[in-house]
Amino acid sequence: MRLAFDLARRGPARGVNPQVGCVVTDATGTVIAEGWHRGAGTAHAEVDALSKLGSGAVPPGATAIVTLEPCNHTGRTGPCAQALLDAGIARVAYSVDDPGQHSGGGAQRLAAAGVDVIPHVLETEGEALLGDWLRAARLGRPFVIAKWAQSLDGRAAAADGSSKWITGAQARADVHRRRAAADAIAVGTGTLLADDPALTARDEAGALLPEQPVPIVFGTRAVPPGARVLAHPHSPVQCAGTDLAADLEKLAERGIRSVFVEGGPTLISALIAAGLVDEYLLYLAPALLGGPRTALGDIGVASIGDIRRLDIESVHTLGDDLLIVAHPKGNA
Amino acid sequence: MRLAFDLARRGPARGVNPQVGCVVTDATGTVIAEGWHRGAGTAHAEVDALSKLGSGAVPPGATAIVTLEPCNHTGRTGPCAQALLDAGIARVAYSVDDPGQHSGGGAQRLAAAGVDVIPHVLETEGEALLGDWLRAARLGRPFVIAKWAQSLDGRAAAADGSSKWITGAQARADVHRRRAAADAIAVGTGTLLADDPALTARDEAGALLPEQPVPIVFGTRAVPPGARVLAHPHSPVQCAGTDLAADLEKLAERGIRSVFVEGGPTLISALIAAGLVDEYLLYLAPALLGGPRTALGDIGVASIGDIRRLDIESVHTLGDDLLIVAHPKGNA
Repeated sequence: MRLAFDLARRGPARGVNPQVGCVVTDATGTVIAEGWHRGAGTAHAEVDALSKLGSGAVPPGATAIVTLEPCNHTGRTGPCAQALLDAGIARVAYSVDDPGQHSGGGAQRLAAAGVDVIPHVLETEGEALLGDWLRAARLGRPFVIAKWAQSLDGRAAAADGSSKWITGAQARADVHRRRAAADAIAVGTGTLLADDPALTARDEAGALLPEQPVPIVFGTRAVPPGARVLAHPHSPVQCAGTDLAADLEKLAERGIRSVFVEGGPTLISALIAAGLVDEYLLYLAPALLGGPRTALGDIGVASIGDIRRLDIESVHTLGDDLLIVAHPKGNA
Repeated sequence: MRLAFDLARRGPARGVNPQVGCVVTDATGTVIAEGWHRGAGTAHAEVDALSKLGSGAVPPGATAIVTLEPCNHTGRTGPCAQALLDAGIARVAYSVDDPGQHSGGGAQRLAAAGVDVIPHVLETEGEALLGDWLRAARLGRPFVIAKWAQSLDGRAAAADGSSKWITGAQARADVHRRRAAADAIAVGTGTLLADDPALTARDEAGALLPEQPVPIVFGTRAVPPGARVLAHPHSPVQCAGTDLAADLEKLAERGIRSVFVEGGPTLISALIAAGLVDEYLLYLAPALLGGPRTALGDIGVASIGDIRRLDIESVHTLGDDLLIVAHPKGNA
C-alpha cells in the first residue's frame, strides 16, 4: 500500500479528482504492474495499472492494492470495480472508502462477484494523502473557511467605516499564506465594490506567492471594468449568491475543494446562517472600537438556544494580534 | 526596612489609608521603637513609633525607617515629617514615595531641614505591600476593572435578549473569585432593573465567599424595594453616573480602591469612552450569536485613528471559554 501511496502522489494535487495509486501483485506477492491517476478525463489508477499488463495477462490469484475504493460509476471512464472483475483480479485491498454518492459501492460489487476484499488498509495515511479532496467529497461541496479580522468587541471598522489596519503585519502575512493554501478565495459584491480587493496571495514584499486561489465573487451586481480582481492570475468566477449551497456544489464540480471566504459581513453571516462554514479564522486585534460596524450581522440566532457553539482548535499569537481557529461544535 | 514591612502588615488591609510600618534605631542601629498605622483617624506609623519613646527621649543620631514617605499633610493627624523633625530624628530611610497631591513632599521638607533622607529602600517590595492602595492613590480614584462575557463576535445576548449562560461554570467561578478580590462591584441601573443581580461573590455551591465587595449602583433610577442587592452583606451605594470621574473620586474617599464593573453595556461603554477603565476582563464563549445585542455600545471611536488599543496581559482557558486580561495600551 505504501508503494501505491507513492504512485498516487505522482498525480495532480488539485482538481476534481483525487490522487490515487494502484499496485498489482501476483499470487506470490511480486509486483507485476503499477498505475496512477493523472487527472480528470484520464484512466483511473486501477485501469492504468491493468493496462500495463495487456489484455488477458493477469495471472490467477492476483491482488490489486489501491489507495481508494475502486469506483462503481461510469463517468468519462468506466467503473473500475468492473474493470478489475473483467481482468480476473482475485483480491482487492484498498485504503479509504469512496465517499461519493454515485461512485461508491465498488467494494460491495467486487465482494458480491466473489473477489476477496480487504478494506481500510493504512486508512489514516490514506485519508491524509487524499486531504482536502476527501473533505470536499464527504461534504458534497468545498470546505468553507470563514476569515475575518475584528477588534476584541467584534467590530470590523470604526463608526465612519474606516478600518485600515485593525490587525498587524504578522496577522496579514498569515492570511496570505492561508489564501495560498486554498483552492478559491471568495468575497461578496459589497466588499468587491467597496474595497476593490486584488484577492491574490502575496508575500510580505507584495509579490505573488506561487499558488494563487481562484477568485470567486458572490452576488448579482456586476464586477466593474477595471476592478483589480480582473488582473488576478485566475479569471474570477461569479456566483449569484441566492442559493449558497447550490453555488458551492457548482464550485465543487469545477474541482474547487476549499473556499477561503474573506467577507464582507453579509456574505459571511449568510454562510454561517446556512450552516455552510467548516472552519473559522478570527483575527482579533487587541483593541476596542464599539459602534455599529460589527464583523457579523444577523446569523439567524433568535434566542440563546440557537447559539452557534464552536470548538476552538487553537489560539495563536501573531505579533500583537490573536488568531482563534475554530470549527462548528462536533465537527472534526 | 523588612521589619518595618512586617509592622505595616499588622494594620488594616482595606480602607482609605495604606498599611505603613516604622522602625526607629539609635546611632548604633539598635531598634529602639516600632510603630504601625491602625487605620483612618489613628496615629500614623511614625508618630506611633515615636510615642513609644516618650517626649524628648530620641537619642542623637537616630534613624526612622518607614515603608512610605513621611507625609507632609495635616489631616485628622498632623504631618509626620514635622513630627520627625520635632523629635530630632537625624536620618530617615523610606521605601515608596507618597503619591498624594496633598500629602507628598515630606522627604523634601525633611531634607530642607537638614535630615539625611534615603529614599526608595526596597522600593519594589514596598510597592507590592501597598498594592491596590498605591494604584488608587496614583490614579486619584479606584482602579477600575471592566468585565464582560461575550460570544467571539462580541455579543452579550441573542436577538431576543436571552443570554443565560453564554460562558461556562469555570468562567463564572473565576468571576466570583475576582469579585471577592475587589473592594466594590458596580452595575448600571439598567442591569439592576433587568437582571436583579445579587452582586455577591459566591463559591460554586452558591455560598458567600469570606470577602464581599461593596455593591455600587450607577444611575439615577431608584433601586426597587425587594431588589436582591438590598440583601447584600454591604449596603449598596448609589452614584448618579452623570460624571463618572467625580463619582469614582467620591468612592475613593470612602476607601474604595478597586471597582469591578459587571455591566451593562451602557455603563461599561461610558467608562471606556471616558478613559476610566484600567483593566479589561473579557470572557469569550466559543460561540457566535450575531444580531443586535452587542456587549459594548458606542465608546466614542468615530474613526479608526481613535481606536482604543489594548495590551493583552494574558489569555487563559477556563473550561471551553477564554479569558483575555488586557490593559489600555501603555499602562502597566
